[in-house]
Amino acid sequence: MVTLDLSTIRAAHERITPFIRRTAILTNPLLDSDFGARFFFKCENLQVGGAFKARGAHNAIFSLSDDEVAHGVVTQSSGNHATAVALAASRRGVPAKIVMPSNTPKVKCDNVRNFGGEIIFCEPTLAAREATAAQVVAAKGGTLIHPYNDARVIAGQGTVALELLQEVPDLDVLLVPVSGGGLLGGCVIAAKSLRPEIQVMGVEPEQADDAFRSFRAGERLLDGRRDTIADGLRGSLGELNWSIIRDRVDDIVTVTERGIVDSMRVLWENLKLVVEPSGAVAFTAAREGKIAFSGKKIGVVISGGNVDLDRLPWQ
Amino acid sequence: MVTLDLSTIRAAHERITPFIRRTAILTNPLLDSDFGARFFFKCENLQVGGAFKARGAHNAIFSLSDDEVAHGVVTQSSGNHATAVALAASRRGVPAKIVMPSNTPKVKCDNVRNFGGEIIFCEPTLAAREATAAQVVAAKGGTLIHPYNDARVIAGQGTVALELLQEVPDLDVLLVPVSGGGLLGGCVIAAKSLRPEIQVMGVEPEQADDAFRSFRAGERLLDGRRDTIADGLRGSLGELNWSIIRDRVDDIVTVTERGIVDSMRVLWENLKLVVEPSGAVAFTAAREGKIAFSGKKIGVVISGGNVDLDRLPWQ
Repeated sequence: MVTLDLSTIRAAHERITPFIRRTAILTNPLLDSDFGARFFFKCENLQVGGAFKARGAHNAIFSLSDDEVAHGVVTQSSGNHATAVALAASRRGVPAKIVMPSNTPKVKCDNVRNFGGEIIFCEPTLAAREATAAQVVAAKGGTLIHPYNDARVIAGQGTVALELLQEVPDLDVLLVPVSGGGLLGGCVIAAKSLRPEIQVMGVEPEQADDAFRSFRAGERLLDGRRDTIADGLRGSLGELNWSIIRDRVDDIVTVTERGIVDSMRVLWENLKLVVEPSGAVAFTAAREGKIAFSGKKIGVVISGGNVDLDRLPWQ
Repeated sequence: MVTLDLSTIRAAHERITPFIRRTAILTNPLLDSDFGARFFFKCENLQVGGAFKARGAHNAIFSLSDDEVAHGVVTQSSGNHATAVALAASRRGVPAKIVMPSNTPKVKCDNVRNFGGEIIFCEPTLAAREATAAQVVAAKGGTLIHPYNDARVIAGQGTVALELLQEVPDLDVLLVPVSGGGLLGGCVIAAKSLRPEIQVMGVEPEQADDAFRSFRAGERLLDGRRDTIADGLRGSLGELNWSIIRDRVDDIVTVTERGIVDSMRVLWENLKLVVEPSGAVAFTAAREGKIAFSGKKIGVVISGGNVDLDRLPWQ
């Protein structure tokens, strides 16, 4: 059993610092005045590869022994984790085999190939992705880097909250999008360790609400819809992730599709940032009044900015 | 005659620091590797009001005596300077009257009104703008804050290069978009004072190339086309600005409309930043091979990010 605590996350931060960016934390007086709150946007869209995923992937791959990477690494992902693993593997100097659904947008495939990753296509279901990744490992060797159900990945993602709390130590609330739960799991450990009184909330699209329903039911539910515009949040809650979230997160709230698109546009217009739909989900919890924000200092994780500029949702 | 030197710009920086953002300087390994150069993007699209204009406007308005602002301030602008003056005036607690062309996009009018500015519309020509602003001053009093032909404004804009050189002191080249010449004038003074050997280049759209032609002719030419997509660069070179640029800038180059749109998109996709067409002009000089960039450290000023998301140029 891998330990996951603040010291693991600090160690991860030290390990990945040469490879990732300490991303900007932006504030916006106009938004603050509209809400009567103070927002601190942690801009992981400005991260290497355009998403927080670089953190977990680098921590996982640079944690492995030379023996463990002798046959390279394998993962399955439709998006940002795929790019992150390809990049981290290329920096470690080992091959990466990436299982991707056959309907992955070309731009995301190009990103993986740009970093030297080898793509293996599979049917576009979560089951096919997991099965194909297992087959690749069995047939060709290589160490599997799961996109979220992996303590090293979770520790890496937790460095987002570590950096945010280092710069804004008195946050009242932290809003984190949730899909597989790597980002939320790592962030809640870091945030609650550094500031026990902080409220950490997971935010999920109504149309992909397995974490929300799991939290309400007290057990991990994997069924349900996944037809949200937030394409980074269509995964389902990992087992390790669930145990962390269940025990430590204050609440999980859901937001509408319309709200996600509106928030995305508000962020583009006000912060001048290209934010993908998943990256706008956390802020939507405040915009839709799903949290009590008045007078509070609120950390908001903008998880990524990889979006097809030819297909913007307000067009 | 107002002195304009490094100490003026340092004083401006100290004056405006409480009101403006020290904007991020982003780098991008993928772009660097494509070009065989190192780019340092100074992100004034992340500035208050979405453009560098906040710097000059705050320096000008906070330089004025209480007597000078007793009747408020007046300016003329179709865009970012208008917003910046409205904001700076509201912070000084004085009224701002802003002359704007009748065809100004609603979003830019809204920005001015959001900061409490009073708009006076005029015919959409530079002559009408200048004449109407003079009439407003004559009829109602108030101190005119010219958008670029003003030493206090130029000193404020020069703080862009001051900050960039403070963080990246060994730049080889600095690329700055040029319209009225406030940004380029201030930046060349700051940059050459801090690093005499730096090459400072103005970059202009081919379709609004009065600075380019003036530089070639050795005299200020104000005629010519202004039908560029870079709506922030349709002004014409100020007199004071021209004298600085003529004497200190190394060269002025022009870029194509197609190149500006392509660069804008490259910046959106790679830096995850919302950049307006004018903000992409400086980088276009490298992308179109108008400067020798190989192996160099190149500062690129991204001047602003105010763009109508419903009318993106690649749609």
